[in-house]
Amino acid sequence: MQVYDAPLRDMRFVLHELHQDDGFGGLAHFRDFTPDLLDAVLEEAARFTREVLLPLNASGDAEGCRIENGMVYTPRGFQQAYDRFRAGGWCALANDPAFGGQGLPETVNKLVEEMICAANVAFSLYPGLTHGATTAIEGHASDELKQAYLPKLVEGVWSATMCLTEAQCGTDLGLLRTRATPQADGSYQINGSKIFISAGEHDLTENIVHLVLARLPDAPAGVKGISLFLAPKYLPDPAGAPGARNGVSCANIEHKMGMTAAATCQLNFDDTTGWLVGQPNKGMAAMFTMMNAERVSVGVQGLGIAEAAYQGAVAYAKDRLQGRSLAGAKRPDLPADPIIVHPDVRRMLMTIRAYNEGCRALGGWVARAMDAEKFADDPEVKAHAADFVALMTPVVKALFTDLGFEATNLGVQVYGGHGYIRDHGMEQYVRDARITMIYEGTNGIQGLDLVGRKLGAHTGRYLRSFFHPVSAFLEAGQDDARLGPMVADLKKAFGALQLATGTVAQRGLGDPEEAGAAGTDYLRLIGLVAMGYCFVKSARIATERLAQGADDAAFYKAKIDTAAFFCDRILPQASACFLAIKAGKRSMMALDEAAF
Amino acid sequence: MQVYDAPLRDMRFVLHELHQDDGFGGLAHFRDFTPDLLDAVLEEAARFTREVLLPLNASGDAEGCRIENGMVYTPRGFQQAYDRFRAGGWCALANDPAFGGQGLPETVNKLVEEMICAANVAFSLYPGLTHGATTAIEGHASDELKQAYLPKLVEGVWSATMCLTEAQCGTDLGLLRTRATPQADGSYQINGSKIFISAGEHDLTENIVHLVLARLPDAPAGVKGISLFLAPKYLPDPAGAPGARNGVSCANIEHKMGMTAAATCQLNFDDTTGWLVGQPNKGMAAMFTMMNAERVSVGVQGLGIAEAAYQGAVAYAKDRLQGRSLAGAKRPDLPADPIIVHPDVRRMLMTIRAYNEGCRALGGWVARAMDAEKFADDPEVKAHAADFVALMTPVVKALFTDLGFEATNLGVQVYGGHGYIRDHGMEQYVRDARITMIYEGTNGIQGLDLVGRKLGAHTGRYLRSFFHPVSAFLEAGQDDARLGPMVADLKKAFGALQLATGTVAQRGLGDPEEAGAAGTDYLRLIGLVAMGYCFVKSARIATERLAQGADDAAFYKAKIDTAAFFCDRILPQASACFLAIKAGKRSMMALDEAAF
Repeated sequence: MQVYDAPLRDMRFVLHELHQDDGFGGLAHFRDFTPDLLDAVLEEAARFTREVLLPLNASGDAEGCRIENGMVYTPRGFQQAYDRFRAGGWCALANDPAFGGQGLPETVNKLVEEMICAANVAFSLYPGLTHGATTAIEGHASDELKQAYLPKLVEGVWSATMCLTEAQCGTDLGLLRTRATPQADGSYQINGSKIFISAGEHDLTENIVHLVLARLPDAPAGVKGISLFLAPKYLPDPAGAPGARNGVSCANIEHKMGMTAAATCQLNFDDTTGWLVGQPNKGMAAMFTMMNAERVSVGVQGLGIAEAAYQGAVAYAKDRLQGRSLAGAKRPDLPADPIIVHPDVRRMLMTIRAYNEGCRALGGWVARAMDAEKFADDPEVKAHAADFVALMTPVVKALFTDLGFEATNLGVQVYGGHGYIRDHGMEQYVRDARITMIYEGTNGIQGLDLVGRKLGAHTGRYLRSFFHPVSAFLEAGQDDARLGPMVADLKKAFGALQLATGTVAQRGLGDPEEAGAAGTDYLRLIGLVAMGYCFVKSARIATERLAQGADDAAFYKAKIDTAAFFCDRILPQASACFLAIKAGKRSMMALDEAAF
Repeated sequence: MQVYDAPLRDMRFVLHELHQDDGFGGLAHFRDFTPDLLDAVLEEAARFTREVLLPLNASGDAEGCRIENGMVYTPRGFQQAYDRFRAGGWCALANDPAFGGQGLPETVNKLVEEMICAANVAFSLYPGLTHGATTAIEGHASDELKQAYLPKLVEGVWSATMCLTEAQCGTDLGLLRTRATPQADGSYQINGSKIFISAGEHDLTENIVHLVLARLPDAPAGVKGISLFLAPKYLPDPAGAPGARNGVSCANIEHKMGMTAAATCQLNFDDTTGWLVGQPNKGMAAMFTMMNAERVSVGVQGLGIAEAAYQGAVAYAKDRLQGRSLAGAKRPDLPADPIIVHPDVRRMLMTIRAYNEGCRALGGWVARAMDAEKFADDPEVKAHAADFVALMTPVVKALFTDLGFEATNLGVQVYGGHGYIRDHGMEQYVRDARITMIYEGTNGIQGLDLVGRKLGAHTGRYLRSFFHPVSAFLEAGQDDARLGPMVADLKKAFGALQLATGTVAQRGLGDPEEAGAAGTDYLRLIGLVAMGYCFVKSARIATERLAQGADDAAFYKAKIDTAAFFCDRILPQASACFLAIKAGKRSMMALDEAAF
């Protein structure tokens, strides 16, 4: 049976203790949200996810979605859970109060997202895409569209999708064929077929609002000729309620490795009425507002599933009796010791734990920057925060999902054969997590975004938003003997990152394939350093709290030990990344296509 | 659609060119098997696996096995395929001709196993376990049992299982509860329940012969009180044909993440008649004959699935048009370039390729030692070969399956969203491969076997069987400028391995938990060095062949480039493994159980 209870203590640490000095916080905009209030939201979210969403995770996976006559039915219990989700106000947590949102900071919203994904990641897609769509509509749509759609979407009585992919185009949206023809009344008629549309059709909401990429008749070729349209399943009637059926239909749903409870739809647009969002031929910019928000959220999905895998693995490791401790029997009263005594089981549990705490800490930092980018009063802080978010978006997406997938596999491994059968729900985490490395831009594309767009932008300004705090921390912390070799380990990894940055920047200038060849390893390297920084900083804070005689000493001691494990066992991969980057593209590109 | 065509050229390279100087070959026993004959066997196996087994792989996965009234039915087409498999003599390839086998060397048998697993790994379990069981019966059973069972098993009209696991005991067989009571006629009555029994019940053969671990009434506690029994589903009648039904029944089959076409059974033994195999209370030794053979075969499963994933990914990467080469359009005649032009896609394809060629080369070396252990005339060669097999068995099992799983995931990643849906069959490889890291001893157990049993055995004698050839090669090859930095890369990784060996040996003496904490990283490190050695040696041979003006220059050139990629991009992980080992157990074991 799957278990999950939100790691509230660590979440409060990330929210209130870890990043206070990063310059992104203390936003006047959020002054009404006291720490107590935010903690209460987290506690309520923990209860809701544990009691309402978790029990539907395995049953939803087993049942899956089904399609009958173009109608898609979600698994048993999803409708009731969605109604409770909506009634509880969870759809609107971080949305603008002007449209009915609760206006909470992203720092809290992202922690709640983690909980939802841990308890039931398939369920999370239905409200999750809606949240992303509201970002794009808020940022780019006309006031008329905003008024007509945002309140319903924010309230969650309607949901939304993001229609990019077609059979012949995924990563390369320049190949997109869906067309939009202007009508006399200012609307457009959309024609084309889209695939892989998450929540494209389902029975949870009264209406479904599609954000669709399509070409205008006179559009230039490639990505410069793509516009964004809003096209609802039901056209609003004069009172704003769902009226006539629009010309969009679900042809089929995909049979997938996992996420079976999340409907992935093939949608046909036949003379579908839609409205332009943003400027003609500027659809990519509008869509990327949504896409960037989604990329961070997909990273959080990876973290959420990994936390569920961790908790499942810990429960089993404490319960399953097998063998004796190599240091002598720990439970001579039992026929064998619980397997948590074995070093290799510890290695697996500590690895998942370190991944999760590291990602949660880094994610919390990025969420603070997302808030500051939007709400800081000081334009310099705003700009600095925007740089940091731009730099870290591909890192959060790819790093969290790569590590999240690895974590789910370690979770299965702790269970042995009992993890491979369906009964315990551990293998579901692997199947569900696998897609997070692919959708919203494959992780390879994230690496390319990082080295191709983010690294060199504004002569390295994005990068400095991260390098500066790390440098400053290392200089300040060098003589902190209480942290043992951690500071030196981080310094070494940061040195490798600096060298790698120089190598990639220099070679990439003359040969873009050299940058492309470095993308994945460079992303992992910066991710390792970012997690390492968060860990060493956490350990320093924990050391101080212990010295001050803090109440929950066990939490701070475990934080220091987990940081030490990260520096001992995971951070050394930075050297392998560096050597791989240094090797360059030659052997990667050497083979003739025919030799494969 | 899944594709697979056995990589015969690389297989011939491993069989005839790579290991000729290792001292294990030139066995008089195999003098009748000319290279041409062996190649013909490989070609026929390639045809059979492609034409008969591959087409049933995806359909078998979709259909799965089903149980009705205790009878287990394999998916459509499996019976006919098994009949053709048996009729073609594939069941008996490496078995003793005295019992109807064809007596081929393991070097060829392991390559054929790779093909079978690549085409249909679920199918491979049915004949695969039979092959393992014949090893145990040949080595430990009475002549009477051998005569009664081996010919039928070798012919494949009967199949076999290996019944170890019970609900409360997997890794720790000391907890085993199944009991065997001696009868007046020299037979035993077996009572107990077993789980996770592969091919425990099915419709492919006339009879199923179970090798069962159980306790005699007066047996000592723990693993020293376990005996091995042979218990058939049908007791042979006086003519040797299946007669009366024995008291063993299938209670259920497991619902698994993958390998759905391979029946995994819960078996109940109720007063089941069986016969002792080997000595009383020495069942573990007898079972380990089978287990060790199976471990190498499971490694080959990982390699086989990875090769299928490679071929699927290559086909898609050449076919799928998306984006343009960073070096300028390669196919301006098409709307976009095939994705194989992109560096990150190359990285994924080259990684899978390097894993597969590296594992195939190392596996070929181990197979030669398996043949020499059995058939060398010189007792010193025999002993030396046995050392090498003992050392490498856990490495082959864990390394090949860890890398195989990673390879299948890279295969999915090349497909993007199209890899996550079921249509292309790529996600099946991930689900199928996942179990190989678990069964026949989890990969963590392999690491423990390596550092706990193999490393220190006979004051490092096992280890020397590997260190000596690598040292000799490095000394001889140091000034080979044609190999570029490869020799230096290997030397560095080998140096890390030597240092790590000293560290583990020294710390492990005083504290077995220190050895346990190093197991997984040490296994990966020795595996990287072993693959690296095979690659650099391959590159040297390829360089010589090219200098001699060999016909298939493209093959040898690709071999050198793949070796360079391995040294550039994969071998550097050796340094991360070394640092992790050096860190020791402290942070791994630091947390209180309650802190998890």
